Amino acid sequence: MAWPNKNKDMLYRRVGNSGLHVSAIGLGGWLTFGGHVDNEVTFACMKQAYDCGVNFFDTAESYANGQSEIVMGEAIRRFGWKRSDLVISTKLNWGMANGEILINNHGLSRKHIVEGTRASLERLQLEYVDIIYAHRPDRLTPMEETVRAFNHVIDKGWAFYWGTSEWSADEISEACGIAKQLGLVGPIVEQPLYNLLDRRKVEGEFQRLYTRCGIGLTTFSPLKMGLLSGKYNDATTEPPAGSRFSESQDRFANQVRRDWEKDEWSGVIQKVIKLKALADRLGFKLSQLALAWCLKNENVSAVITGASRPEQIVDNVQSLKLLPKLTPEILAEIDELLENKPALDPARQD
Amino acid sequence: MAWPNKNKDMLYRRVGNSGLHVSAIGLGGWLTFGGHVDNEVTFACMKQAYDCGVNFFDTAESYANGQSEIVMGEAIRRFGWKRSDLVISTKLNWGMANGEILINNHGLSRKHIVEGTRASLERLQLEYVDIIYAHRPDRLTPMEETVRAFNHVIDKGWAFYWGTSEWSADEISEACGIAKQLGLVGPIVEQPLYNLLDRRKVEGEFQRLYTRCGIGLTTFSPLKMGLLSGKYNDATTEPPAGSRFSESQDRFANQVRRDWEKDEWSGVIQKVIKLKALADRLGFKLSQLALAWCLKNENVSAVITGASRPEQIVDNVQSLKLLPKLTPEILAEIDELLENKPALDPARQD
Amino acid sequence: MAWPNKNKDMLYRRVGNSGLHVSAIGLGGWLTFGGHVDNEVTFACMKQAYDCGVNFFDTAESYANGQSEIVMGEAIRRFGWKRSDLVISTKLNWGMANGEILINNHGLSRKHIVEGTRASLERLQLEYVDIIYAHRPDRLTPMEETVRAFNHVIDKGWAFYWGTSEWSADEISEACGIAKQLGLVGPIVEQPLYNLLDRRKVEGEFQRLYTRCGIGLTTFSPLKMGLLSGKYNDATTEPPAGSRFSESQDRFANQVRRDWEKDEWSGVIQKVIKLKALADRLGFKLSQLALAWCLKNENVSAVITGASRPEQIVDNVQSLKLLPKLTPEILAEIDELLENKPALDPARQD
Amino acid sequence: MAWPNKNKDMLYRRVGNSGLHVSAIGLGGWLTFGGHVDNEVTFACMKQAYDCGVNFFDTAESYANGQSEIVMGEAIRRFGWKRSDLVISTKLNWGMANGEILINNHGLSRKHIVEGTRASLERLQLEYVDIIYAHRPDRLTPMEETVRAFNHVIDKGWAFYWGTSEWSADEISEACGIAKQLGLVGPIVEQPLYNLLDRRKVEGEFQRLYTRCGIGLTTFSPLKMGLLSGKYNDATTEPPAGSRFSESQDRFANQVRRDWEKDEWSGVIQKVIKLKALADRLGFKLSQLALAWCLKNENVSAVITGASRPEQIVDNVQSLKLLPKLTPEILAEIDELLENKPALDPARQD
Repeated sequence: MAWPNKNKDMLYRRVGNSGLHVSAIGLGGWLTFGGHVDNEVTFACMKQAYDCGVNFFDTAESYANGQSEIVMGEAIRRFGWKRSDLVISTKLNWGMANGEILINNHGLSRKHIVEGTRASLERLQLEYVDIIYAHRPDRLTPMEETVRAFNHVIDKGWAFYWGTSEWSADEISEACGIAKQLGLVGPIVEQPLYNLLDRRKVEGEFQRLYTRCGIGLTTFSPLKMGLLSGKYNDATTEPPAGSRFSESQDRFANQVRRDWEKDEWSGVIQKVIKLKALADRLGFKLSQLALAWCLKNENVSAVITGASRPEQIVDNVQSLKLLPKLTPEILAEIDELLENKPALDPARQD
Repeated sequence: MAWPNKNKDMLYRRVGNSGLHVSAIGLGGWLTFGGHVDNEVTFACMKQAYDCGVNFFDTAESYANGQSEIVMGEAIRRFGWKRSDLVISTKLNWGMANGEILINNHGLSRKHIVEGTRASLERLQLEYVDIIYAHRPDRLTPMEETVRAFNHVIDKGWAFYWGTSEWSADEISEACGIAKQLGLVGPIVEQPLYNLLDRRKVEGEFQRLYTRCGIGLTTFSPLKMGLLSGKYNDATTEPPAGSRFSESQDRFANQVRRDWEKDEWSGVIQKVIKLKALADRLGFKLSQLALAWCLKNENVSAVITGASRPEQIVDNVQSLKLLPKLTPEILAEIDELLENKPALDPARQD
Repeated sequence: MAWPNKNKDMLYRRVGNSGLHVSAIGLGGWLTFGGHVDNEVTFACMKQAYDCGVNFFDTAESYANGQSEIVMGEAIRRFGWKRSDLVISTKLNWGMANGEILINNHGLSRKHIVEGTRASLERLQLEYVDIIYAHRPDRLTPMEETVRAFNHVIDKGWAFYWGTSEWSADEISEACGIAKQLGLVGPIVEQPLYNLLDRRKVEGEFQRLYTRCGIGLTTFSPLKMGLLSGKYNDATTEPPAGSRFSESQDRFANQVRRDWEKDEWSGVIQKVIKLKALADRLGFKLSQLALAWCLKNENVSAVITGASRPEQIVDNVQSLKLLPKLTPEILAEIDELLENKPALDPARQD
Repeated sequence: MAWPNKNKDMLYRRVGNSGLHVSAIGLGGWLTFGGHVDNEVTFACMKQAYDCGVNFFDTAESYANGQSEIVMGEAIRRFGWKRSDLVISTKLNWGMANGEILINNHGLSRKHIVEGTRASLERLQLEYVDIIYAHRPDRLTPMEETVRAFNHVIDKGWAFYWGTSEWSADEISEACGIAKQLGLVGPIVEQPLYNLLDRRKVEGEFQRLYTRCGIGLTTFSPLKMGLLSGKYNDATTEPPAGSRFSESQDRFANQVRRDWEKDEWSGVIQKVIKLKALADRLGFKLSQLALAWCLKNENVSAVITGASRPEQIVDNVQSLKLLPKLTPEILAEIDELLENKPALDPARQD
C-alpha cells in the first residue's frame, strides 16, 4: 500500500480484525505535545512523521490537560493534510481533561463518553476520530452502558471504531460478549504497555483474545520511559537521581514502574546492557531493536512512539529495516537473555 | 471526587447501577421555581445549591405549567455553568405542561414522549437532559411502546438515561424485562415519595427491585410537605386551617396525603414531636434528621429537596453531617418510635 | 362444555390466557387428604366432587408430608377416572415433603424442581400433572434458573403448564419477562389467598397482571379457615379458645392471620354477621356467598375448596346458583359493608 | 437448614448465584478413592463425611482412571442415601478416564462432553450428577461448541448445572457471554486451586467475575499437598526426599507446584511455621486454619478436601468452629505474615 509521499519503508497493518490500516509506527502525544514540548517542535515532529509515512496519530483527553488534542488538531490544519489519509485516535477516562477529576467528567458512563467525545472533537477541531479508546476500565459503570455509549458515538459519526486501553483480558472478553449479544460493535483494539521488559500481559494474559475476539494491539511505552534506549546503562546500581525512575513524578510513571521491587534495578540494567550488545551486533541502535522486537509480535498493529525531536522519528522508522534480521534464532536468544517469556497455557492446544 | 468549587461536604452517589453520579442532595423545582417563588429568588437558590456542591437539578414539564423548566434553563445560562458538571432531569406525563391536559399532550405514548421531550428541551434551552423520567405510569399505553419511545429519545441524544416516577414494582419489573427482551435500555432510576412517615413502597414493595433490576432512587417529599419540619407540631388535634393538609389544593397534595385516615392526624403529630426531641438530642434540626434518614437507605441515590430561600439549602446540605451519627442504634430507636418499618418478605432468603 | 356425568350445574373456566379449562370449584387436599381426614372419607369426597362436575384437584408435595398426593393418586386409580378428564395440580417449595426442610429438598432451584416433580409424580403414581406450581417464591434462586427448570419439567412431559403461588406482582412480572426474553413458557396462573376479607393483593397489587401477563387465578382460603362459614359468629369479643385463630398451630394459619392486629377480631366478626344476614336474604348459606363472591371476579378461574365431608362439596357447588343473584347492586352493598375494596390505581386508564 | 442426621455443625452455602446448596466442606476423590486408598476405607470416609453433614462429593472421569467414580457410586448405593440429599459432581477433560489420552476421549468437544458424561454416569451408576465441570479449558474447541454441549447435557437431564475448573478469567467471561447471547445456561461455578499460599488467581485475576458472572467457587488443594498441614515444617532447607515436592510424580503435583522457583522452599516453610504458631494460639490445628481461612472468602461455596482416614474428616469439619475466631484483625495478621495478598485493581471503583 502506498502513502501520499511515496515512502516505501513504512509498513501498514490492519488493526485487529477490522478493515482499518495503521502505520506500524504511530506517533503519540503523551507528555510531549501540548506539554513540555514547544508547539513549533510538535509541528515539526508531526510533519517529519507524516513524511516518513506515519498515518497514525494518537492522543487523549487527559494528555497535557487537553492541550495535546489542541496542538495535534492545529498541526493537521496547518499542513492541510487530507483527513482520509490520517488515522486519528483519542481516549476517554483517566480524567484531567479539565485539569482535575470532577464528578462526571471521567469514567465510562454514557454521560462522560458522549460529553467527553464531543469535547475532544471540539479541541481537535475535527468532525470525527478514527478510533476512540476507553483509556482505562471503569469498574463502577456496567459494561453494557459503556458498550452502548461507544456504539452511540459511532452511530453519531463521531468515531469509526472503539478500543480499550489497559483493560484486563476478562473485561475485553466481557465487552465483546455484550456487543455480540446486543448486536452492537465491539472493541477492535487494546492499547497496552508492551516492551522487552514487560511481556506478561500481552503474551500471557491476552494470549486467547487475539483470535477469539479479533482484538489487535497498538502498544505504548516501547522504550519503557527511556530505559530501553540504553541511556541509563551506566547507572548499574540504582536509578540515577532526577530520572523518572527515581522520583514519583506522575501517575503514569508510577504505573509503568509498578511491577518492580526495590532491588531489581541492577538486574534489569544488566539485561539492558546485554540487549545493547545484541543491537550493536545487528548494526542498529538499542531503541530500534526495542521497537522492531515489539513489531515481531504479529498481534501488534502499531507501536506508538513519542518524540521531542524530528530526528527521533526518522530513527524509529528505520527500525523497520531490522525486522528481517530478527530471525527465530535471534528472538530465541533474546528470550533466553531476558528470561521473561510468559509460558503458553498448557491446556490442550495445537 | 471533586466539584468545581471544591466543596468538601457534599456526597456524590451513583444512580442505581449506572455510571452517572449525583449529589446526595438534589434541588427540585416542584411548586416553587416558575411558580410561587420569584425568579430572582429561584436564581439565588440555584446558585446557593451549586455553591454547596449540588449538581443534580430536577424539574418536570408539568411544574408550574412549564415555567419551572424555563426558569431553570435561564439560571444555567445566567451563571455560565459548564453543562458536563450538571445533572439535569425532567419528567413527562401527568400533563399540564400547556396549562391543561389535552388529548395527546400527556401519557407515555411515543407521540407524547417524543414531542414532550422536545418541548421540554426547548423550554430548558438545552440540547439534552441527563435523565428523563416517566412522571407517572400510563396504563393505557402498552409498555413496549413506552420503552421503545424512551430508547428513541436516548438514541437521538436528547437524554442519557431514563427513569420512572411513582410506578409500581411490577411495572418497573415489566419495563426492565421488555428492555432486556428487545435489547434496549431499561430504566435506571425510580423517583418515589419517601420519608420517615411513608416507607411502605420504598422499603416494602420495591425490596426486590434494587438488585434484580439495578434500580436506584431519587426520592421526593422528604419533609412530607413541611410536616417533618415540625412546623405543625402545635396543631396536635387537627391540621391547621389554611395548611396544605386541611384543604385539597392540588393533586399533588392529595397524593401525598392519600394513605391517611381521618383520625390519624394527632397520632402522626405525636410521632413527629418525638422525632423532634430525637433531632434535638443529636444537635440537628428535625428537617435535617428527615433528610439524613432518607440517605441512610443505600438504595437512595439522592433526596430531592425544595427551597424558597437560599438558607434552606445550606441547612439541607448540613444534614449530611448527621449521617455518621445515625448509628444502627439510633435507626432502631426511630423504627420503634414510628412503628412503620415494612416487614421483609418472609420467603426463603439469606 | 359437558362433563362425563352430564352435570349441568358446574361452570368451567379457562385458566388465565391458556387453553386449559378447570371447574370453577376445585378441590384441594390441604390439611385434609392424607392428613386429619380418613382415607375412605377422602375417596368419598373426591367421588362426590367428580360426580358434581369438579375436574380440578389440587395438592402439593408439602400437604401432609406427601400423603395428600399419595391418597389423591390412589383415588384416581380406584375410580378408574380417565386421565384426560382431570386437571391435576401439585406444588413445589415450602418443603415438608420429607417431613422436614432439608438442604436441597425445597426452594426453586433446578435441582429441587426436577427432583421434587419426579417425587410428586411417584407419589401420585401419575405420568404427569396438568399444572405444577411454585408454592412460594424463592428469593435466593435467580428467577432465570426457576423459569428454565419449570420449562425443563414441561419439556420432559411431566407437566403441561406451570404457575406460582403467593408470589408478589413484580416477581410474576419478572418471571413472565424472562420467559419472553428466552423464548420460554411463562407461568399461566397464580394461586393466592383470596376471600371477602382479604382483597388487597388480588384486586390491588395484581390489578395490572391479568391483561399484561395473561395470568389467571386459582384462589385458596375462600372461607378464611372457617371464619366465613359463620361458625365463629357468637365469639364477638375474641377468637374462641381452641380455634385456629387463637392458637399458633401451624405456619399456614399464621400466614392467613398475618395481617390482623389484636383488637381487630370483634370488628371482623361484626362484618361477618352482616354478611350472614345478606346471605340469608339471598336464600343461601354464608359459605356459599363467600365462594360465589370470589367467582364474580372474572380473573378467578377456580376457587379451591377443602372438604372433610362429601355434603360440603354439594353445598359448595350449589353456590354457583348464587352467581346470577350477585348483581352489581349487591356487590356494591358488600363493598360498602366491608370497606375493604382496594382503590384502582389512579394513573391514566380508561 | 437441616440435614438428615441433624448435624448442627455443618454450614451450607449457595453455589455462586444458583439455587443449589453445598456443604462448606466437600469431599473429593482425587488420588485417593479408587486409587491408593482401599475401597473399604473409601466407604468409611464417605460414611463419616455424610454423618458429619457433608452433602457434596466431587469426582472426575480422570481420577484413578475412572475408578474413583465407580467406588463413589458404589458407596452411595451401599448406604442407601437418598439422591436428592446429595450433591454429586464429576468432571470431563484432562483425560485418562480410559488409562491414557486418546484422540477424542478428552477435550471439550461436543463428542467428548456427551460421550464422557454418559460414561461417567455409567461408572457412577447414577441417572444424573448435580454439577458437571469442564476439568480444564480446551483451547482448540470453539467455546460455543462447549457451551452448547453442556447445555445439551443439562437438557437431557444428565446434570443440573455446569461449571469450569482451572479456567482463566477471560475464558469464563467468554463462556458466560456466549451463553447469554445464545439464550443458554452459563457456568455457575469454577473449581480453582486456592490456599493460603496460592491466592493470585482467586483474589486477583477472578476479582471481577463474582458479581459480573455470578460465579461461585468450589476450591481444591486447601492444604497444598500436605504442606499446610505442617508435616514438612522440619524440612527447612529443601523438600524432603520422597515427598511430592521433591519428585515429579504426576501432572497434578507439577501443577500445584508450578509457581515456585527453586530457592523458594525455605522461605515458604518459614511462613508455614509462623502460620502453625498462629493456629496454636487460636487452639486449632494448622490444617484447620488452612481450611477455615479459605471459607472466610465469601466467594468460596465449598472447600473440597481429600481424606484417606475417617478421622481426617472429623478434623476438617471441626475447622468450621474456627470461623468466628478469624476476625478482621487475625486475617490482617495472616496477610502481613504471608505478603501475598493480591492488590485490587486500582481502576475506578467504590
